[in-house]
Order: sequence, then structure tokens, then C-alpha cells
Amino acid sequence: MSDITSRPAPLSGLRILELGHFIAAPFCTRVLADLGAEVIKVEPPGRGDPVRAWGQTPEGQSTSVWWSVHGRNKKSVSINLKDPAGIDLVRRLVGEVDAVVENFKPGQLAKWGLGPDDIAAANSDAVLVQISGFGQTGPGRDRAAFGLIGEAVGGIRHLTGYPPAVTDLPPVRTGISIGDSIAGLYGAIGLLAAIFEKRVARAGEDLPNRRVDVALTDSVLSLMEGCLPEYGYFGSVRQPHGSSLPTTAPSNAYPSRDRKWFLIGANSDSLFARLCRAMDRVALTDDPRFIDNQARVRNAEALDQEISAWTFTKTIDELEAAMKEVDVPSSRIYTVADIAADPQFRARGMIQDVADPRLGKVLHPGAVPDMGGDAGATVRWTGPEVGAHTDEILEGLLGMTATDIDRLRGAGTI
Amino acid sequence: MSDITSRPAPLSGLRILELGHFIAAPFCTRVLADLGAEVIKVEPPGRGDPVRAWGQTPEGQSTSVWWSVHGRNKKSVSINLKDPAGIDLVRRLVGEVDAVVENFKPGQLAKWGLGPDDIAAANSDAVLVQISGFGQTGPGRDRAAFGLIGEAVGGIRHLTGYPPAVTDLPPVRTGISIGDSIAGLYGAIGLLAAIFEKRVARAGEDLPNRRVDVALTDSVLSLMEGCLPEYGYFGSVRQPHGSSLPTTAPSNAYPSRDRKWFLIGANSDSLFARLCRAMDRVALTDDPRFIDNQARVRNAEALDQEISAWTFTKTIDELEAAMKEVDVPSSRIYTVADIAADPQFRARGMIQDVADPRLGKVLHPGAVPDMGGDAGATVRWTGPEVGAHTDEILEGLLGMTATDIDRLRGAGTI
Repeated sequence: MSDITSRPAPLSGLRILELGHFIAAPFCTRVLADLGAEVIKVEPPGRGDPVRAWGQTPEGQSTSVWWSVHGRNKKSVSINLKDPAGIDLVRRLVGEVDAVVENFKPGQLAKWGLGPDDIAAANSDAVLVQISGFGQTGPGRDRAAFGLIGEAVGGIRHLTGYPPAVTDLPPVRTGISIGDSIAGLYGAIGLLAAIFEKRVARAGEDLPNRRVDVALTDSVLSLMEGCLPEYGYFGSVRQPHGSSLPTTAPSNAYPSRDRKWFLIGANSDSLFARLCRAMDRVALTDDPRFIDNQARVRNAEALDQEISAWTFTKTIDELEAAMKEVDVPSSRIYTVADIAADPQFRARGMIQDVADPRLGKVLHPGAVPDMGGDAGATVRWTGPEVGAHTDEILEGLLGMTATDIDRLRGAGTI
Repeated sequence: MSDITSRPAPLSGLRILELGHFIAAPFCTRVLADLGAEVIKVEPPGRGDPVRAWGQTPEGQSTSVWWSVHGRNKKSVSINLKDPAGIDLVRRLVGEVDAVVENFKPGQLAKWGLGPDDIAAANSDAVLVQISGFGQTGPGRDRAAFGLIGEAVGGIRHLTGYPPAVTDLPPVRTGISIGDSIAGLYGAIGLLAAIFEKRVARAGEDLPNRRVDVALTDSVLSLMEGCLPEYGYFGSVRQPHGSSLPTTAPSNAYPSRDRKWFLIGANSDSLFARLCRAMDRVALTDDPRFIDNQARVRNAEALDQEISAWTFTKTIDELEAAMKEVDVPSSRIYTVADIAADPQFRARGMIQDVADPRLGKVLHPGAVPDMGGDAGATVRWTGPEVGAHTDEILEGLLGMTATDIDRLRGAGTI
């Protein structure tokens, strides 16, 4: 039996062509590349994926530091998709892969001669994953796929805010591209499910290739817990609840003396009793307003005031120590500085100083999930320059000669 | 070549044992069950998974309407894990499945005799997926895994709020269990990656079984875009930005005359010009304050005031019509009532009236991703009663007789 620590990553041997840009498709393939898949990313010659210009960028460079993470573990091949010779190259690459992942506007690739039928003609075995804002079908498929719109339509934005009685500020954006990321994860799941069908469950059968149609809106909606059945059954429309939970208390963010926010989740009788002990207010557990969860939810405002009055006398460090002593779930609200310093993240390899040939050391989040350290998901290399692997792929995969490649480069195709 | 519309779901033939409760593991297996995997969920006899009691519940029932969705497409087997005879049953079930998914507190299953070594002894081929708040390793692994804590530690909570200059309210909770769901999706990816390795890439090799260790905190951190490299490289700590985007403008929520919020993302020169046309304010495009994205970001507050002054004169319906005419990405912020009425969701089968034997008709979100309608991810049945499939599984899978089963039931083991 081989040693788990020396075996290849789990997705070694899976080859994926990415026709993606911005976030959703590239995030999908980053997750798969972290797990060992060979991802060939097609980018426009020159500037490459527009997302390379997003975020903070070192003086004199055109590519952000985020790219070091977002493009990691992938091979970049530069091909001009507006050139028929480039389309021909992509079709030949499709012939050599297990799956294609794309997130152009629905219909865009078909206009270029790379639609689902073209992909199937080039490789009847290739799984096609298409990620878009609203999906490949339906009357709304052509709407522009901005993440903030998809998140709002999927239902997450409405719930991410305070009730109108608390403030007249609009609900906030979850400060990251949450909808794109969730769609990317669903894309990875659909891709692997289709591969399972083709290579395991129905191996040897002549099945038409699967299309995986991931909509950002659908992906967000799938996470909405009981909202839809509760609306259908009771007619109730779930409303935002600020920083607390609607059905249990206390569970909220409380201010510290040094003006930070401290989360406490003491929402069971036993946790609440321990919190009261730490606050030196054990009498609160016998207070009829707080006697059980139902009572605490009814009197959550009064309860939160009691807790805030106490937290406001302590620094965030004192609060953490106090809650640790009574073992009540709690935490400061981590900034990225807290994340980078966190011993648990460090111990799990989730904070890595990675050598980047362009930038020197770059701080990367580790690869997820942990599947056995170096034998699982890992950071193998950082986001490459545009076209860094063009020659390697065209020679190795398509058998082209240096002369062929020079000619394509001269013509601006690659 | 077989017709795609009549073929089995992609994960047909994959059998998974769920030792889960609450959200993360059950969500992971729901996604896999939607895709056709046979999921056998072990629940305590009697009350079952505690999450059955969460959310709105019809009069006289003990199980919420959410359960109809959360438990769908799974088989429920009731087994008492505090009874050694129950543990023995679970071990025998482990012998019959491709993967086990669990989300007990790290170490809890091992105490019961169902730790990783026990699982491996029962079935050296079974993939083990372990989902927890902070992971199976490291100094923090025993911290209580409350979603709100994990989300804060992963970094999402800090960014989901307004800057302190705008309000003294704390950042809000993304109103759903976003951290658990993301961890569940990573669990599904890890499971399928391990199956790919075992059954495709290294089929026939005698590999020790994979453990997939998914931490809620790691999962959230993996979505944090450029936060970590930007902190490492520039020392900059990403801060919350309310309902707008920090790097591009205009992109925000604007008030309508009928007191709703309307999202507009007009953050390119061409989109901005079209917005100005709809506002009948074309001169704004020549205003030096708004001449390009950089200028608009610098003067975002003034720009948002101009736009708000206009949106406030229109109803939400009028705003939607106006933006549709000039094709600018925009949307009202959907409540679940908007979601249920949305023609695109309806057209894509994302709003389904599903017959539930307990409740009658229940509104379900469709299964994600779309992999060919009824041949892909589907709702096959609704969340079952506790133990509804106990006899079927013990007879069919373990070959037990009715007498064996009666005895176990009499002893309270099942």
C-alpha cells in the first residue's frame, strides 16, 4: 500500500480547458487546479484576462498581486479568439481535454464557432461547464451578469442588512464576490459529477457529452435555507436581521472598550449561564425575561443591552480571555491582519508565504479542502504571465513545431 | 447513442453514508443527492436531526417545512449512536458505501468507535469527508463550530458592513448560513475528487482511503480574493464598503419613490453614459468629476447623490423599465416573494411545487446545477420522516431479516 504522503494530488490526470475571465470560471478551475487538475487557461495575447488588472498592483507592473492567487496552478496559453486561426487552435485543444469550463455571455462562444455543438464535434467526450449570471436558457439569459445583480436576484442581498426600523441604510454587499465563487464551486461539482458518470458509472457507454449549466442566480438561491418553502406554505417573507439571529439569543456583535466588535453566541441555556457567570451576573439566568431561548428572543434588545454594557468595560483581548475561560463560542471579527496572525490558520497551512517569480514572496491562502497535506490540494506555482505555457502546450499537446508556433505568433494568433 | 433526456442522473451508482446534523454535512449530501447519489442519512431514533425543529413548522407537527428541502432525495435510517449495537450497524453500513460524510465535533465519532481508523477498518475503499468549524488538526480544532464564529474568523463578516464613518452599527450577518453551505460545497468537491482518484486516475491500485478535512474557516478564507496577498505585499487591510464597490462607480443601491432599494451597476464609461441618458442628464458624462472611472470613484458620494435624486422620483417598476430600455445592469433587491414570481427562475425550473406526503405542496428551489433537466439534478422526493428507510436499507443492504429488525427496534437501537 503506497504512502499517502507521496502520492499525486487527487485530480492528477484530469485535464481541463478554461475559456474564462473575471471570477466565476477562473475560480472554479483554481479549485480544481489546487486539487491537481491540469488546467489550461486560454487568454487574449497581450493583456490577458481583464481580472489581472483588478486590485492592488505593484508600481510598474500591469498585473495585481491577487493574480498570484487567482491564476495559481494553471497553465496560461495566449490565443486570440477573434482570429479564426485561434478558434481552430482552441478546437484542437478541446480534442485533448476531459472538460471545458467557460463563462462568456451566453451565446458568445457559439458566435465564435465554439458553441456546445462545436465543442461536441471537436470532442464528444468533453464535459462542458458553462457559468453565467442567469443561465443558458430562459427569457432572462441575456441579462448582463454582474455579480451584485445576481446576488440580489438570488436573494442574499435582501437578507444582508438591518431591518428598516434600525437604520435607513440599504442592505450591504457581502464584501467579496460571493455569488461568483458559489457558482464556481457548483461548476466544479457538476464537472466532477459528469466525469464520474462518464468514467465510472457508465464507463464504456457511448453517451453524449454532458453540459453543465450553472447560473449565479440559481446557485445563490440554492443556499436560501427555508425561505422558499416558508413563503410557499405560510406566506411569510424572510426579512433581514442585522448582526443577530432571528430565532435564538443571545447571538450578536458587542462593542469592546477599545472600539472593536466581539461576537458572542451563547444561545443555549447552558451557554447563557456560562456567559452570565463570566459577566458576574448569574442572577440574569433566573430573570423571567431571559429564562429560556423563547424569552431571550422576545427580550433580545434588553438582553443585548445588558451584554453590551459589560463588553464595553473590557478590551477585546480581555473579552476573548473571559469567554475562553467559560468556553462560550465567541470571536473578534477578524480583519485580514488577524487572519494572517491566527495560529490555527498557520497550523493548518492556510497562510503560506509562496515564492512568486514576479513578486518575490506572496501571502497565499492554502488550498482547500485538506486532503492529506502535500498529497492533496496544494499551491504548486503562482499565477503565471500571459501565455507562459503557450509553447509547452502547443508543442506537447498539439505536436506543433517551433516554426508553426513562430508563424502563429507572428500573425498575432497567439 | 442514448438520449440524454432518459438517462439516469450523473451520480447514480454513488452511495454515501451521512453521519451529519444541522447544516454543513447535510447540505453537502443534499447537493450530491440532487445529482443522483444514493445518500443514506443516519439519524437518532425519535426526534432525528435537530435541524428538523428549525424554522417555521406547521401547527401540530414537529418537523419544519425547511426539512422538506434540506432532507430531500435522501434515505433516512434511524440508528442510536450511543448504543454499541448501533455503532456495529453503522460499521456494517460503512462497508457498503463509497463515501462517508460527517460533521460531528472533531474526535466525537472516534469516541464512539467510528473514527477514521474504524471507518478504514470497516471499508478501506471508503472516502471519509469530515466537515467541522476549524478543521481536524491544529490548536483550535476543539473550538465550538458556530457558523457565525467561523464566518467571522474566515474574514467575511468584517467586510459585510459599513465603514465606521457611515454608521456605528456592527457589520451584519449574511442572513443565511453561508459558511456552512460553502464548507458543504467544498466537501462535495473533495469527495468527488477522491472518487475520481480511486476509480479513474488510480483505479486498481491499492491506495489507502482519502480523508477530506473541510474547515468552515478555511472554506470562507479561500474566497477572500486578493485580501491576503494585498495585506502581505502592501500591508493594506481590506475594509468594508457598505452597499457599493470600492474600486468602481457608480455601483450601489438607490432608493425608489415607493421606498424600495434599486441596484444599479453602471460602472463603465459606456454604461454610465447610458444611465445618464435615462436620467436625462447627459451633461454629467462631460462633468470632470465623473469623466472616467477613477474620477467617479473619487467623487462617488456626489455621484450617488445625483443618481439617488433621480431614482427617488421613480417607482421601482419605473426604474426597472428605464434601465431595461438603456440596457444597464440593474435590479430591485429580491425578497423571496420576488424570487417566487420571477419568470427566469420559473423558466429554469428553479421554483418547483413539489408534492410532500406530510405537507401537501411545498415550494422547493430546483436542483443545481442544471445538467440536462430531468436527466440531471432533480427533486426526486422530499425530506423523509425519521427512519423512513430503515427497514429498506437494513434488509436490502445488510441482508437483515424482519425478525432481526424487530429485535433492534425493540431494543431501541433503531
